[in-house]
Amino acid sequence: MKNSHLNGDEVHENGGCDNDDVVLGVDGGTTSTVCVCVPLLPLISNQNLPNPLPILARAVAGSSNHNSVGESASKDTLEKVMSEALSKSGSNWSAVRAVCLGVSGVNHPTDQERILHWLREIFPSHVKLYVHNDALAALASGTMGKLHGCVLIAGTGSISYGFSKDGREARAAGAGPVLGDWGSGYGIAAQALTAVVRAHDGRGPQTALTDRILKALSLSSPDELIGWTYADPSWARIAALVPDVVSCAESGDQIAHKILVDAVQELALSVKAVVQRLSLCGADGNDSFPVVMVGGVLEANKGWDIGKEVINCIHKHYPGAYPIRPEVEPAVGAALLAWNFLMKESERHHNS
Amino acid sequence: MKNSHLNGDEVHENGGCDNDDVVLGVDGGTTSTVCVCVPLLPLISNQNLPNPLPILARAVAGSSNHNSVGESASKDTLEKVMSEALSKSGSNWSAVRAVCLGVSGVNHPTDQERILHWLREIFPSHVKLYVHNDALAALASGTMGKLHGCVLIAGTGSISYGFSKDGREARAAGAGPVLGDWGSGYGIAAQALTAVVRAHDGRGPQTALTDRILKALSLSSPDELIGWTYADPSWARIAALVPDVVSCAESGDQIAHKILVDAVQELALSVKAVVQRLSLCGADGNDSFPVVMVGGVLEANKGWDIGKEVINCIHKHYPGAYPIRPEVEPAVGAALLAWNFLMKESERHHNS
Repeated sequence: MKNSHLNGDEVHENGGCDNDDVVLGVDGGTTSTVCVCVPLLPLISNQNLPNPLPILARAVAGSSNHNSVGESASKDTLEKVMSEALSKSGSNWSAVRAVCLGVSGVNHPTDQERILHWLREIFPSHVKLYVHNDALAALASGTMGKLHGCVLIAGTGSISYGFSKDGREARAAGAGPVLGDWGSGYGIAAQALTAVVRAHDGRGPQTALTDRILKALSLSSPDELIGWTYADPSWARIAALVPDVVSCAESGDQIAHKILVDAVQELALSVKAVVQRLSLCGADGNDSFPVVMVGGVLEANKGWDIGKEVINCIHKHYPGAYPIRPEVEPAVGAALLAWNFLMKESERHHNS
Repeated sequence: MKNSHLNGDEVHENGGCDNDDVVLGVDGGTTSTVCVCVPLLPLISNQNLPNPLPILARAVAGSSNHNSVGESASKDTLEKVMSEALSKSGSNWSAVRAVCLGVSGVNHPTDQERILHWLREIFPSHVKLYVHNDALAALASGTMGKLHGCVLIAGTGSISYGFSKDGREARAAGAGPVLGDWGSGYGIAAQALTAVVRAHDGRGPQTALTDRILKALSLSSPDELIGWTYADPSWARIAALVPDVVSCAESGDQIAHKILVDAVQELALSVKAVVQRLSLCGADGNDSFPVVMVGGVLEANKGWDIGKEVINCIHKHYPGAYPIRPEVEPAVGAALLAWNFLMKESERHHNS
């Protein structure tokens, strides 16, 4: 370990660094964990980021969500994925200047503290450690590290997360199926399954979703859907039916269409709630701000484009909102955040 | 074992029986299993049922839902609870003429066959065995064994189940939370929790549900609700909040009121779907038929009476529908069904 790393508060006065210093960005999701290792370039701001970004190495491991796998396995996975990224990049633990971890399941300050505590057991005190919800890393993956604007994530689950220029943050939705995230992939598919059951038992109109979904699941009758949902409570398994719902809506099925329209309203509402609370749109409502769009539900579809409809809906209220579809993955967003935080500390040091 | 029991097809020609012959009625729920042992009285029809019914003994055990506890434990529990009821009544296995089991989770003919197979391992072939969904036992508990009309069960879950005079059956809802049973106790409480989260993150209006529910759960902020719902996925734990929702509605909270109004619509719709499919209301829509009301959600509350509102809603469409709140428990309903089935076989035997 180099001497320069032994002093916890030391930051290079010019915002620069040793040539072999690195930063780790980690995206800890419910299904997998991705770590990227990037060099700590002598940057002053994110205006002069190299394009493409220099990524020394990338490593992938299983889930590090402590709610799913427990604390001990989560810590082991994190240590393993970081070790692998360092090894692949020809670097080592002593070259690490900062780590930023974006983790799903960080909903409360106590979650953050617990994870920081584990990380501190791995890294010496001079290494800068940042732990946030994975939504922050997703925002940074769209804004290239700049903490301003709103991110909307709609995959299996959904969440809207935002940051204002003066450092305030807000979130909406992201509470899971029990607490009504109806714009999520799970929410869309659960509504479609419900529509099939209702058509079958006489509570609702017939829909093309019935044939489409039964075929997708290799079932012969809607009665069998009950057993199918009970057999495995995984939300991702249900959310996987979203393309079938989109396909039915594209073919003109009114029930499928209505489910997607409702999902668009829900997703746009969660963005609006964040924009409103943070006044991202300014006093007159016309300020410009980015809306980073992440997740399978928002990816461009052929006919029925959920992401485009959400943006249209947001535009009606906030003409200054501009959509960004990230070109880098959330783990890179996490690395950019770490970079960004280090630069800010360097500036503070420089100005003091 | 008496000789009269060794002939599988033997039924007493006068519909009568030995003095010590008994029938077992079992209500197999998700949380507990109840078995009652009743004497096989020489009845011709259910018009001359003794009041009160003679119940020789009652025994209670844990869950026998094979989805929850597995097949082996389910069978052990059933055998134990029946053995205990027989022992308490001073009877024994050889005195059993018929068993009727009403089990939650019987949604498909294969479920029925599997359970009949287990029961057949316990009882010799001359004992009549009947396995049905618990909704059928609940219907029988209201109609005193007569298979005609509709039953609406709304506890943690909800289901509507009906039988026509010509022997057709139909069900609606009862598919669980994923498939949208929004009139159930779980559904009502999940909507209330969602309303609290939406008020907190700016997607919905403020509601008295926030203070009421946080107090009930000893939480300090709606943020903590996410962790609370993830900590234990039990539906009953969520459904236990229904009295708080009713209480807020009674105090004039519009959000709570709207949740209950929607639940009433959902429950009434599930009854209507069954009535329509079975033509229980007759060609002119005015025929008389019973609607048996079962479960905590439908019990009379002080101000906001969900069960009464459901009946009002059904009455508007079907003036001949009359509500019955059962005076006996579902296990007795199951015993009455067994009785009823035996009598029918006896009549067939008599007429042939």
